[in-house]
Amino acid sequence: MKYCFGVDVGGTSIKIGLFTVEGNILDKWEIKTRRENKGEAILPDIADSLKAKIKEREFSTNEIKGIGIGIPAPVTGDGIVKNTANLGWGYKEVNRELRELTGLDVQAGNDANLAALGEMWLGAGQGQTNMIMVTLGTGVGGGAIVDGRPMVGANGASAEIGHVCVNYHEKKKCGCGKTGCLEQYASATGIARLARMRLAWDDTPSLLRGQEKIDAKAVFDAMKAGDDVAKEIVEQFSAYLGHGLANVAIIVDPAVIVIGGGVSKAGDIMIPFIRKYFLEKAFFANKETEFVIAKLDNDAGICGAAKMIIDK
Amino acid sequence: MKYCFGVDVGGTSIKIGLFTVEGNILDKWEIKTRRENKGEAILPDIADSLKAKIKEREFSTNEIKGIGIGIPAPVTGDGIVKNTANLGWGYKEVNRELRELTGLDVQAGNDANLAALGEMWLGAGQGQTNMIMVTLGTGVGGGAIVDGRPMVGANGASAEIGHVCVNYHEKKKCGCGKTGCLEQYASATGIARLARMRLAWDDTPSLLRGQEKIDAKAVFDAMKAGDDVAKEIVEQFSAYLGHGLANVAIIVDPAVIVIGGGVSKAGDIMIPFIRKYFLEKAFFANKETEFVIAKLDNDAGICGAAKMIIDK
Repeated sequence: MKYCFGVDVGGTSIKIGLFTVEGNILDKWEIKTRRENKGEAILPDIADSLKAKIKEREFSTNEIKGIGIGIPAPVTGDGIVKNTANLGWGYKEVNRELRELTGLDVQAGNDANLAALGEMWLGAGQGQTNMIMVTLGTGVGGGAIVDGRPMVGANGASAEIGHVCVNYHEKKKCGCGKTGCLEQYASATGIARLARMRLAWDDTPSLLRGQEKIDAKAVFDAMKAGDDVAKEIVEQFSAYLGHGLANVAIIVDPAVIVIGGGVSKAGDIMIPFIRKYFLEKAFFANKETEFVIAKLDNDAGICGAAKMIIDK
Repeated sequence: MKYCFGVDVGGTSIKIGLFTVEGNILDKWEIKTRRENKGEAILPDIADSLKAKIKEREFSTNEIKGIGIGIPAPVTGDGIVKNTANLGWGYKEVNRELRELTGLDVQAGNDANLAALGEMWLGAGQGQTNMIMVTLGTGVGGGAIVDGRPMVGANGASAEIGHVCVNYHEKKKCGCGKTGCLEQYASATGIARLARMRLAWDDTPSLLRGQEKIDAKAVFDAMKAGDDVAKEIVEQFSAYLGHGLANVAIIVDPAVIVIGGGVSKAGDIMIPFIRKYFLEKAFFANKETEFVIAKLDNDAGICGAAKMIIDK
């Protein structure tokens, strides 16, 4: 068994990687996610793409360990999806269906959990066996690695870090229907909202005023340039994120917390701010937890998917 | 391998059980915890007690799978304790030392994690592989079972549920040095404090006034008798506990939450109150999580310790 495939299914495109079992990426490509007709073409499209690659490379089936596949939904330990928000699928037995389509062994997992596994294997968490990854994108996603394996949970919905409550007094609702979720403050949308609200509060001059797009990088850049309003926004964002991560660490007890997603493009400058608030609410045993920015960017998902089938 | 020992080390006594590997308790007894001289006698005392039992029963060593042992402190995956609050130990290699004293295989774990494992094996969590146990005693302890195994963590300090922050506005300090910890409200001490504070608030008549000892059972009993003040205290306690457990469930995604410890003696009447607040802050995927009261009482620790060495 020399090779395997890592597949990362997204709402608009499907990323696919061909890996050696030692962790080298030999090839990677994308195909379109055809969500029409309840997403019925998604798994057949993946199977066709993999079969074409196997033919192109002249691999024999017994050289291939199998296919790991990440799905943007809760996935149970035996590869069952009950529902998806943006693929069109209802109930789907991903392991079985893709195995029948390809003749290869398959293991499906949640995409955020697999991104965490990918960072552990080839990215910012290398050498670790207990880690958390939080992905600060449009929403806030999360994955936890326990003893070298992704935590799955009874419903395939573990480590939903974005929905930890960090503000019991919030009245406005998160997309999930609850109030005070970390995602409301620490996502790309969240930090932009914190910025707009601070700017609306009074008319203190700020470099952020009049900027067309206020994202995490703009806020951190303004702070670096000495902007006091931006610094206040950074402190507020970091307090919600640091406090939320401290509560997650109290449960998972990770050696390292990896921060990924678009917001993390602001870079290492974020870390001392997040750590300061983390330490306020961290249990004494977790005080040494390291923080690192993710390294694999959009490849984390395919890497983790490959690692999952290798470890099956 | 027919037999094993489960040992649960506490600050005043050490509980020991002799089990079959199928899960029958053949014998159980206690010895005193001699904490003097940095607790140097604790492991030798345990070894002597086990050797005497082996002799009494005329077992041969190759009939014995080994010794599982629960310690009231963080314990790493390889059985190392870095410090203890109430045994006198500093750094201690429990697996190695007890193996050298007995000639048997040893696996040490955190006592709260092993109590959770015990409830999964023989108690309220039977048949489950993903569960949380919260122990509401003098403090609030916790353990999490992931895929049938206790979650350990990088520092052996996973699932410290008592120190999840449930009140970001609290100014008074928990024993751990942080503020707003679940333990400040949901421990035996915590619920008594909530009761005293409510009674001090005004002079509304209550059955609780003038009672010498106000514990969880007294508060729930008064509520059952129609006492409005007691009902307010129950609601407040349940809100902190339910919200805290919802945040833990968002990370662990358990099928069941087991509630143990002295406070849980109030019984099943607690569950609808805790669930009500749990549902307020639970992620949609966790809404079906079951709540059950622990069944094994003080035997949970020895049962979990036995299961740990069986699974090693």
